[in-house]
Amino acid sequence: MLTRTSTQSLTEQLAGRFAERIRTRLLAPGARLPSVRECARQQGVSPHTVVAAYDQLLAQGLVEARRQRGFYVRDSAVAQQEVRAPGAVVNTLAMPLPASGVPADASSLIRGMFHRQSDKPQPGMGVFPPDWMESTFMPTSLRRLTSTRALQDLSLQYGEPLGDAALRRSLSQKLVSINVPAAPDQIITTIGATHALDIVSRTLLRAGDPVMVEEPGWAIEFARLESLGMRILPVPRRADGPDLEVMAKYCEAHSPKLFVSVSVLHNPTGYSLSPGSAHRVLQLANKHDFHIVEDDTYSHLAPEHATRLCALDGLQRTIYVSGFAKILAPNWRIGFLAAPPGLLGGLLETKLLATLTTPALFERALAWCIDQGQLRRHADRIRVRLDGARARTVKLALSHGCTFVSEPAGLFGWVDTGVDTDALTQRMLDEGYLLAPGSLFHARRPPSTLMRINFATAQDAEFWKVFGRVRG
Amino acid sequence: MLTRTSTQSLTEQLAGRFAERIRTRLLAPGARLPSVRECARQQGVSPHTVVAAYDQLLAQGLVEARRQRGFYVRDSAVAQQEVRAPGAVVNTLAMPLPASGVPADASSLIRGMFHRQSDKPQPGMGVFPPDWMESTFMPTSLRRLTSTRALQDLSLQYGEPLGDAALRRSLSQKLVSINVPAAPDQIITTIGATHALDIVSRTLLRAGDPVMVEEPGWAIEFARLESLGMRILPVPRRADGPDLEVMAKYCEAHSPKLFVSVSVLHNPTGYSLSPGSAHRVLQLANKHDFHIVEDDTYSHLAPEHATRLCALDGLQRTIYVSGFAKILAPNWRIGFLAAPPGLLGGLLETKLLATLTTPALFERALAWCIDQGQLRRHADRIRVRLDGARARTVKLALSHGCTFVSEPAGLFGWVDTGVDTDALTQRMLDEGYLLAPGSLFHARRPPSTLMRINFATAQDAEFWKVFGRVRG
Repeated sequence: MLTRTSTQSLTEQLAGRFAERIRTRLLAPGARLPSVRECARQQGVSPHTVVAAYDQLLAQGLVEARRQRGFYVRDSAVAQQEVRAPGAVVNTLAMPLPASGVPADASSLIRGMFHRQSDKPQPGMGVFPPDWMESTFMPTSLRRLTSTRALQDLSLQYGEPLGDAALRRSLSQKLVSINVPAAPDQIITTIGATHALDIVSRTLLRAGDPVMVEEPGWAIEFARLESLGMRILPVPRRADGPDLEVMAKYCEAHSPKLFVSVSVLHNPTGYSLSPGSAHRVLQLANKHDFHIVEDDTYSHLAPEHATRLCALDGLQRTIYVSGFAKILAPNWRIGFLAAPPGLLGGLLETKLLATLTTPALFERALAWCIDQGQLRRHADRIRVRLDGARARTVKLALSHGCTFVSEPAGLFGWVDTGVDTDALTQRMLDEGYLLAPGSLFHARRPPSTLMRINFATAQDAEFWKVFGRVRG
Repeated sequence: MLTRTSTQSLTEQLAGRFAERIRTRLLAPGARLPSVRECARQQGVSPHTVVAAYDQLLAQGLVEARRQRGFYVRDSAVAQQEVRAPGAVVNTLAMPLPASGVPADASSLIRGMFHRQSDKPQPGMGVFPPDWMESTFMPTSLRRLTSTRALQDLSLQYGEPLGDAALRRSLSQKLVSINVPAAPDQIITTIGATHALDIVSRTLLRAGDPVMVEEPGWAIEFARLESLGMRILPVPRRADGPDLEVMAKYCEAHSPKLFVSVSVLHNPTGYSLSPGSAHRVLQLANKHDFHIVEDDTYSHLAPEHATRLCALDGLQRTIYVSGFAKILAPNWRIGFLAAPPGLLGGLLETKLLATLTTPALFERALAWCIDQGQLRRHADRIRVRLDGARARTVKLALSHGCTFVSEPAGLFGWVDTGVDTDALTQRMLDEGYLLAPGSLFHARRPPSTLMRINFATAQDAEFWKVFGRVRG
């Protein structure tokens, strides 16, 4: 990763890399930097270069030297850095501290998702590698639409508040095919599934409201609800669904207004909801009068007869959310929600107040890909390819002393490494790999020996070799 | 607007139109429908057809007949409609009630913005008519980017959290040219200026916080702050800037955290901030330690030497917000903010939690249009065309008995009609025109004889003829 052809010296490059990790909290306050000898070996530079780089970090106030013990990240490193350089150009990665209340390390992982750590495959990532997504049908579809006339229709006015009508028709058909009875006018398009979940939270909840969320669960969901000021009630996720006894107790004690669930191919466990559990969750919702938002982000990877709460309930007190980042084009940022008619007005209001409309050009292009069957064929290919990758990854993980907490399924494996994965994540970063440690998937971030791996990016023998060495 | 070739009878079409207006609250509860004779004349149908249509509305529970006085919208019309048709297909326009706390009529106007009332030019709209925006450079720019390879780079990964780097470089140059010292890495791209303002509010404020907003001001801003639970402190907007005495009193009494200002070509008055007033606003902000978000949505129409708070302040406690909906492509939904380094982390966090990233493909295409000088030339042409339209509209407005509250400038005229504009808006709707009544631009919506007109769409003699007749 360090290059001799750069305009920066090796020392500057190395110091810059550590500074970046400290600022983004990938290296937390109190963390120990690798020994000079170890760092020199990892980076393929002389110990001299490492000493000079650590000296720069010392001078910048980012680390401190502890006699006989090495270099440690200072507690106030990031805050100091801000005071020292007011108005200076902030590097994309060198962001100041996250908003209070948001777990610092969740936000680091989120940022990490958007920045290649290196050219190596990243087992901690949440999406397929770009070469899996290569396809010609998307550019074809977009080019069809960039004739002056069509572009004008789709760009020069704000567009429909609910979203492009052609896409909503396509989505309605798809939803009906999985028994979710959503008419086109019950669908609102969004900037990815993330935006859909944000709209639901903002519309149905007020600051301080209690909300039930599955645990383990996706870090961004915890962070968003916290930043909106909600009280998170974590519900243990079991193989067949959420822990109903815990939910019932929460209902008695707190009268929560909303339950957030990834029913099918749950992140990070890969669990899918059973019909019996779905029925009982809905009974509870009816008895205690709460809404459910069902995040079906992994729908394109799901088995054909997967059970969804929205299908059983018929969109009476359930809201369906999904998107296309996982299967098609993360950066087109297309997601959607389907909701009961009585909630639509409020949800649409929130969308309009937050972003007005969404870009219709991408939405129309996606509608064409769906209508032509191209998305379905693409998804079929991805599922076959993922099955192969999963089989290989499982073998590699087992042979490197990991065990699977849950039956491997879908995109993610939920793996026990036998060692603390927060510490392991720090050490693997030095090797150019970003992991997704188990603590990330819990609201309170307790230490954990688990980690989430992406089956598509973890079928790499080189990764497991390094993993085996670093774990020790 | 009613057609004999439709699959629906004239009666059904007419009843449907009224039902739509009642549901969207363009016809408020208690409002009187036009007399049978008047409606028949306006619509060019027989009184028979009108009676049959009103009968349908009666049967649907949307209106009630008052003896000798005509037909009135029922108070519970909308709620009833929801109960009567649970699960039914909801028409795009036939949305349920907006969230409580959001002014119903603001949301009606907002929705009205996205739906043509008719093919007539709409003086109440906030954007240029599509034919002003016609250009070939946008499709060219997009097509350049839809080669398979480039599309892949820009679509198959999430993209940079701050936004496309090429666009942020272009924007930085533009900002520096108006003396706002924003480095590319102090800029965050958003889904339009609306999203930027939403991000700022969510990051800097918590529910219940007091926030100063100019009055009159844009309805969406009031509605969003209300929906987030903020306490709105309206600051009267004068010709040279906000009323500083009122601001000083608010500061003493409430310690507000934020001031939201449209400094240049203020909506709806067209006022622009004076340098002296800008200086005093910043002094106040320093003394009382609040932030300022400066909404420069109309920057492309602004005179060259316009004064901006962000330029005087050097982005120390000011946040700059703008977008391209007004000048280029409303539906590309590209906006941005530029902020002090110390606020960037929190603002970026909010963007990521709300929508993850934004679509880089449009951002890169826009960067090309800016870098090639095409946007600047387009804006130059629009300004010249707007000057001509403004001169014609002012003449028409004056000759129809209106007076201008403020010196005509920019896109909007702030006009006194001499009659109540809420009532006038209802009557003009029957003629196919959506107005923007003065009450919309106030937090508490008091009755007003003012209205905002769009100089580009109000240079139409036919509109003023109808206006003159309806106002009486």
